[in-house]
Amino acid sequence: MPVNDAHVLNRNSPVPLYYQLLEALQARIRAGEWRPGEMLPSEAELGDAYDISRTVVRQALEGLERAGIVYRVKGKGAFLSERKVVARLLQDPSGFQANMEAQGLAVETRVLGQAIVPAPSDVADALGMGVGQPVLCLERLRFVEGEAIFLGTSYVPVALCGDLSESDIGEESLNAFLRRRCGLVPAGGRRTIESVAAGRLQAELLHVPIGAPLFYLFAVTWTEDGRPMECSQVWLRGDRTVFEVQLGSGVNP
Amino acid sequence: MPVNDAHVLNRNSPVPLYYQLLEALQARIRAGEWRPGEMLPSEAELGDAYDISRTVVRQALEGLERAGIVYRVKGKGAFLSERKVVARLLQDPSGFQANMEAQGLAVETRVLGQAIVPAPSDVADALGMGVGQPVLCLERLRFVEGEAIFLGTSYVPVALCGDLSESDIGEESLNAFLRRRCGLVPAGGRRTIESVAAGRLQAELLHVPIGAPLFYLFAVTWTEDGRPMECSQVWLRGDRTVFEVQLGSGVNP
Repeated sequence: MPVNDAHVLNRNSPVPLYYQLLEALQARIRAGEWRPGEMLPSEAELGDAYDISRTVVRQALEGLERAGIVYRVKGKGAFLSERKVVARLLQDPSGFQANMEAQGLAVETRVLGQAIVPAPSDVADALGMGVGQPVLCLERLRFVEGEAIFLGTSYVPVALCGDLSESDIGEESLNAFLRRRCGLVPAGGRRTIESVAAGRLQAELLHVPIGAPLFYLFAVTWTEDGRPMECSQVWLRGDRTVFEVQLGSGVNP
Repeated sequence: MPVNDAHVLNRNSPVPLYYQLLEALQARIRAGEWRPGEMLPSEAELGDAYDISRTVVRQALEGLERAGIVYRVKGKGAFLSERKVVARLLQDPSGFQANMEAQGLAVETRVLGQAIVPAPSDVADALGMGVGQPVLCLERLRFVEGEAIFLGTSYVPVALCGDLSESDIGEESLNAFLRRRCGLVPAGGRRTIESVAAGRLQAELLHVPIGAPLFYLFAVTWTEDGRPMECSQVWLRGDRTVFEVQLGSGVNP
């Protein structure tokens, strides 16, 4: 990490000092100066190093905390959080588990509920079927490297895949299961992503405070011949997930 | 809206009743049953209509409120919010303003700061330049249909475009300006999106409570020949923005 950037803030910049410090600390974190769980320098040390008030330092640390980059322990200091999981779900129809495993991350799944239900109207709309037609409803909590990150409800038309209410899907990904069992291969899809506050249920299952920022993803997946095969509503921990997208043409520099 | 879906919840579903009600209300909202600003039925009325307790109704309304779909006024009831703006930024390098205008939405911009600054290390990394090299730093608050939605800081290498610190960029989009003034045309890019809680600065400028869910977008844009031309850090109101992505192959059903 270049020394000239690390400890000099630009007092003529339109960027507020606390935010410059936040950026400088982020750069040092990215450069690997501290390890997850390690304590950052104290407010007093940072104030001295950057020649700014402790109020400004505190604002920067609060910003890092809100972004989930550090967590603070009262009376101790700020500690580096675990790194966020990079989700490429937005450009990859192969699903969450394949996406995580491609990055070498272990995924475990706990099935919370599995039943045939009449399709609610938004699910029916997404799957191009009649309201009330039977769908498999699969509610799952998914863990990445032992941590609950993903809470999702998936719907699969019974007309496509038969009654799977008794099948053991928890062991593999839903995509792998649907391919093996029904020959359904995901080829494309549509995703919408929202930034929402955790409700009671999400907070409890994902171990975050009520109101914590989550992603809410609504995904429809279709096969090569355009048959909608599945739709899902998913909440992902905001402090543990970052979506990455590459777009357009041109060389990736 | 089909009557059979609107007022019957499935008591055998693994989906909790409050969430089924939330979905049913969302479907009715999507179907246009209420207009933005209009009051939804009271908790008592909904409880009677769906044959559930007011506690369950309240959970559903809280969920809609957290998702920014309704807002509640104490002693009055729940009112339908303005619709979210659909951002296709993740598949379209043409920028926020072009994206909004393509949807017929009016964008206004207030320039909060504009200066040449030494590139901080994360900006230098993104733009493939040396730390401390001069960049134009442009801080803007952007309004869609009169509402502050977008708070962003953009950086453009001075080496690419000269000193633009005195230019009037506020009138048009940065992309349009860079194209007209410097012949730079966006062709591709990389985006990361995070779900974060609003800090003091964001809350104040975007008129949301501290802690409200925001999107944090980090965007790098490059030209056809792969020169990074611009990077931006953007906060978008979570209660007013939904990202939409179409992916993979196959027919869009």
